[in-house]
Amino acid sequence: MSFELALNTGTTPNLDLAAAVEAAATAGLSHIGPWRHLIEQAGGPEKAAQIISSGGLQASTLCRGGFLTSNSPEGQRAALESNRRAIEEAAIIGANELIMVVGGLPAAAHILGGEGEKTDKDIVAARDRVARALGELVPYALEHGVRLVLEALHPMYAVDRAVLSTLGQALDLATPYPTAAVGVVVDTFHVFWDPQLQTQIQRAGLEGRLASYQICDFNLPIAADALQSRGMMGDGYVDFATISRWVSAAGYRGPVEVEIFNQEINSQDAALTLAQMNQRYGSLVLPHLQQAAGMVPAHATN
Amino acid sequence: MSFELALNTGTTPNLDLAAAVEAAATAGLSHIGPWRHLIEQAGGPEKAAQIISSGGLQASTLCRGGFLTSNSPEGQRAALESNRRAIEEAAIIGANELIMVVGGLPAAAHILGGEGEKTDKDIVAARDRVARALGELVPYALEHGVRLVLEALHPMYAVDRAVLSTLGQALDLATPYPTAAVGVVVDTFHVFWDPQLQTQIQRAGLEGRLASYQICDFNLPIAADALQSRGMMGDGYVDFATISRWVSAAGYRGPVEVEIFNQEINSQDAALTLAQMNQRYGSLVLPHLQQAAGMVPAHATN
Repeated sequence: MSFELALNTGTTPNLDLAAAVEAAATAGLSHIGPWRHLIEQAGGPEKAAQIISSGGLQASTLCRGGFLTSNSPEGQRAALESNRRAIEEAAIIGANELIMVVGGLPAAAHILGGEGEKTDKDIVAARDRVARALGELVPYALEHGVRLVLEALHPMYAVDRAVLSTLGQALDLATPYPTAAVGVVVDTFHVFWDPQLQTQIQRAGLEGRLASYQICDFNLPIAADALQSRGMMGDGYVDFATISRWVSAAGYRGPVEVEIFNQEINSQDAALTLAQMNQRYGSLVLPHLQQAAGMVPAHATN
Repeated sequence: MSFELALNTGTTPNLDLAAAVEAAATAGLSHIGPWRHLIEQAGGPEKAAQIISSGGLQASTLCRGGFLTSNSPEGQRAALESNRRAIEEAAIIGANELIMVVGGLPAAAHILGGEGEKTDKDIVAARDRVARALGELVPYALEHGVRLVLEALHPMYAVDRAVLSTLGQALDLATPYPTAAVGVVVDTFHVFWDPQLQTQIQRAGLEGRLASYQICDFNLPIAADALQSRGMMGDGYVDFATISRWVSAAGYRGPVEVEIFNQEINSQDAALTLAQMNQRYGSLVLPHLQQAAGMVPAHATN
């Protein structure tokens, strides 16, 4: 099988892991991408692994590691320690791919509840710290058979969440390391605007680093909480046909994860959300993935 | 003189052209960058030219041309016609630089009050139309001694305002044309996040296309109207020291325009805004421009 639809648990934030697994399995899905707090709530990664496998599912990714931009030695140490735990958790739940959101400027650390140096707005130095920290984590990731999957975030989050803003930048950051250790994710919301998108998706494929395809739409106006601007495929302005063809043509055949932060969708019944996911995926995304892969689109009229 | 502070009239939206010229001159400024609706209100470009010069000022830029992404022949014709008028106006008011905001997706045209095809989310095709329209405008711009200055907008506006999102993309778009015909602007708000920023600013300098430096800060949280997230220098997260050094090192010596859309700043007394501009420019921006240019920073402690 290829292109299995996967539920990222960020899409159903009111469900615990067991309920999310059940909802996904009931909707006919085979993969789930859990967030770390659900692993903890479930009683740890061994319990979580059991819940996922006894529901008949596989883990597509673990969300998330990262936040490597602290400008203090203690902050860096704590971040590396947290990422090592995330690598262990990913290995135990059977997720080969650990999504990495690299972190923002120290000057903005207070926005996400952290401590930072309010005057440190040096984005170049913050990127250098990410590169160094990545180098420290790579051996641990390789030992555990887990790939660190760098996520370029939309530039509207460059200040508070990720000084990594483009797929090209993610691939540059990955270059020194084995493909088994560092990959990249294409998240349509974050990268649809990028003039280099086709080129960099091709490059990710050629370089063997295309580790995950995450989908959701880009809605306007931007939500009051900018993080909530993600929409169900088809509701916003992303050209899913084109990007999906590029991703498939670059050789990606893995699960396709739906990750939507959106107040309306997050508060509705999960069964409804999963039904919408199935329908929109079948009509707007899957046929283009299959076509570019030389397969016969089986459900083009879903 | 180099690096003259300039008032973009978007910063003082409650003033007509005469009042904005007076406020700028009173604050000791030598340059102003007017928006087109102020030219029209003033009774046309000849009158506007008179108001600007009798106030002792020069026009730094004219804001703005562009919106070249319509997917209908009539829409394209109307856009080209409007841009020819803008070129004429720029020439008459003595602004050598016409700022170009290229336009968004046809699917989002309704957001800015236009008509568009709701299903057209093809950003690649929209960029192609911009490239073709630019080619049609270049001879007219050259005839009038006006440079079309491509503005990369922050990717959060890629859908509704500009499918041109990076300085590198702007320079690629400019490549076929003489440097007297097509330039680029570095607007700190729009490009501060770009991992290729230093390289592309250097390239803009080497290629002779660095036509304007516009400054304001990037505030968080993003305002309810995302356009209003621009802040006074120092209030947000932009590293002005670093970017200003890059711009100066690339050879830019022209006026530095402050363009702030921000509800609080826009509604306060213009004299206060201009005083803040002078103070923040003198402490956060000018010393770095001068230093990188090998000048003695005269007002580093302002």
